[in-house]
Amino acid sequence: MGNAASAGTVAAAVREDRLWRRLMDMAAIGARPDGGVDRPALSMDDAAARSLLASWAREQGFAVATDPIGNLFVRRAGRDAGAAPVLTGSHLDTQPMGGKFDGAYGVMAGLEALQAMNDAGIETRRPVELVAWTNEEGSRFQPGCMGSQVFAGALPLDKALGAVDRAGTAAREALAAVLASEPDMAVRDAGLPVHAYIEAHIEQGPVLEEAGLHLGVVTGIQGYRWFAVEVLGEAAHAGTTPRARRRDAFMAAHAMVGALRDVMEDAEDVARFTIGRFDVEPGSPNTVPSRVFFTIDLRHPEQGPLTRLGDAVEPLCRQHAGACEVRVTESFTAPPLLFDARVLDRLRAAAGRQGVPYRELPSGAGHDAAFVAKLAPAGMLFVPCARGVSHHPDESATPADLATGTRVLAEALAELANT
Amino acid sequence: MGNAASAGTVAAAVREDRLWRRLMDMAAIGARPDGGVDRPALSMDDAAARSLLASWAREQGFAVATDPIGNLFVRRAGRDAGAAPVLTGSHLDTQPMGGKFDGAYGVMAGLEALQAMNDAGIETRRPVELVAWTNEEGSRFQPGCMGSQVFAGALPLDKALGAVDRAGTAAREALAAVLASEPDMAVRDAGLPVHAYIEAHIEQGPVLEEAGLHLGVVTGIQGYRWFAVEVLGEAAHAGTTPRARRRDAFMAAHAMVGALRDVMEDAEDVARFTIGRFDVEPGSPNTVPSRVFFTIDLRHPEQGPLTRLGDAVEPLCRQHAGACEVRVTESFTAPPLLFDARVLDRLRAAAGRQGVPYRELPSGAGHDAAFVAKLAPAGMLFVPCARGVSHHPDESATPADLATGTRVLAEALAELANT
Repeated sequence: MGNAASAGTVAAAVREDRLWRRLMDMAAIGARPDGGVDRPALSMDDAAARSLLASWAREQGFAVATDPIGNLFVRRAGRDAGAAPVLTGSHLDTQPMGGKFDGAYGVMAGLEALQAMNDAGIETRRPVELVAWTNEEGSRFQPGCMGSQVFAGALPLDKALGAVDRAGTAAREALAAVLASEPDMAVRDAGLPVHAYIEAHIEQGPVLEEAGLHLGVVTGIQGYRWFAVEVLGEAAHAGTTPRARRRDAFMAAHAMVGALRDVMEDAEDVARFTIGRFDVEPGSPNTVPSRVFFTIDLRHPEQGPLTRLGDAVEPLCRQHAGACEVRVTESFTAPPLLFDARVLDRLRAAAGRQGVPYRELPSGAGHDAAFVAKLAPAGMLFVPCARGVSHHPDESATPADLATGTRVLAEALAELANT
Repeated sequence: MGNAASAGTVAAAVREDRLWRRLMDMAAIGARPDGGVDRPALSMDDAAARSLLASWAREQGFAVATDPIGNLFVRRAGRDAGAAPVLTGSHLDTQPMGGKFDGAYGVMAGLEALQAMNDAGIETRRPVELVAWTNEEGSRFQPGCMGSQVFAGALPLDKALGAVDRAGTAAREALAAVLASEPDMAVRDAGLPVHAYIEAHIEQGPVLEEAGLHLGVVTGIQGYRWFAVEVLGEAAHAGTTPRARRRDAFMAAHAMVGALRDVMEDAEDVARFTIGRFDVEPGSPNTVPSRVFFTIDLRHPEQGPLTRLGDAVEPLCRQHAGACEVRVTESFTAPPLLFDARVLDRLRAAAGRQGVPYRELPSGAGHDAAFVAKLAPAGMLFVPCARGVSHHPDESATPADLATGTRVLAEALAELANT
């Protein structure tokens, strides 16, 4: 049978109900009372999520393995065991106030695609592998995309394992505890060859929903620059210290943020500028703050504005420091990325054959795909999520849209696995 | 012997070296590596500080007692045991990043005054009592001035004891643990009659130092209004959510603070406006904040501006809430206070006789004296502190200035105790 024919058979074997049920079962691990999910990377809930995925994979006869940073691989064998696999996946960790679909969808869609290949009774030349990358969110251990970065050689393993969370636990210890819950799992090397990679994800933005579309072909990922700003002033008595004599770290940081906001706010609303963390010390109502630490998350799909806006951060902070000292550190940066045209063509073709209208759009969020793209041709597809809300318990997507994306994914994977 | 003569004898018996050594010994309890003091109210360090004070008092033959809120009293008997005592004192608790003198000076000055009366061999008609008030700072348990408020009937005992710190410990439990370290100490009723009260304190502001003076007679305490502001938005993905669709609690709170600052900044630099606590949730660098909680500490020596500025807080917060919700609570308020002219006259007269030039000034900080003033004629004296710095490890005062204040205090107390 031809590639397109077998791939089409795979798409028809995707089961919306099974995919949905597994997403709901997965969301029960680390469930929040408000309907969201709190499943920190390398937590015991993360371990339980991995074990659940592994148990579903083993039921299908798929081989399960991990690697030194804890990425979890599920392998559906191909005719040519030596051929580089086609890879799909995403991540199982969530933000502290996260939802059911960010990450979990790409993993469950991948598993559904592999199982649909079984159900359709098709063989592929190349193995098809599903991966659940370790610590994509970066909210417990920094940096995020830790598993895919180590896999792609973008982050040394030792540095990743040395990351420490706010409670003082190192990623190394946390990973050991997670792996101890599956002591018999095979461990393989990081960074094995990959033929191609596709990641399915909820959009996390409003574009598809507003356009009334059920699929997005993701052309690339906007670039980003992260900064950490430390403002040092002097604690003083709130009742007695005149304004002119204060070295108020809060008011200095406030002035910096005001100046930054004025520069970052573009009329087109394309630049993304976020102050997500803003810690004030000592944090006593009647003491002038001595220290503020805040983060800047700046993103833009074009390199020019990203460079210009990011380069303005340190000068603006210095200019508005007043009587305080300020230290600006650029903690993380990634240029805008364009995905591989051949992978995107497979997605376009599958969507076309399945009669699914789509829009091409860049991703506003960073994804593991950005790092896998350093190793292999990569691409992504999006399905809509309600009101574009993600990183929030209200994150929501429909069973039908999730299945639509999975059918396109399954067909594109099967095609790529026969090239 | 006449009042003025005996009082002068007391002043001459004040010993600068003994006062300084006791202040340094006291500062060793809860000492910070940076030279400051961290001695939270009702902590075990607070208990140790109380025990040290009690041991010094007992060496002098003074009776020591506590009351239901843990205020510690040291009594030097007078000829008329039934007469209402003249009271002096301050507090032994500190801010988390506090110094050696805020509070401790008023207690050690009081002890030195009592001991100087012994050394001078004088008798007074009324008893003279020293008090160390419980939890003046309010940084561990709210509200501050807890001990003096309960003493003055301004705060119900049960409400005070029900206050809970950030670790979940109730003041009731913490007090019981402190009292358990001095199980034999007498316990007396709260709010016994007081003939007059004088509190000595470091200025915590720059006025005396800038004027080259070593003493301040404190005419009153500026009024204050405390507010708590809660801003509720919606968490969202920092990379994908356009500015127009965000309900960014941080940016809303930032706008509120900007508008408040513009209104509060007077050309005369008299109003005191402080944002001391500003908590951002969830506090993840790549998540748009869903909630901000911040405090406002507003003070002014005149009722008119205090009313006008404080009444502007809620409307300005509402006006700048954007797509967020905001809740403004006025958590604490006190009108400007004027001290008793008769007590101030005693201080002026003592300073005059001792040839100490002084300035009259209002206090920028709140003090226990404000609550005792509800019960009895009260007044305060200030000595300078370096650069006006307090609530900071660098808080500093000279042995000579501290002794100057103590001599004036001792003479005024002795005079009042013979009226």
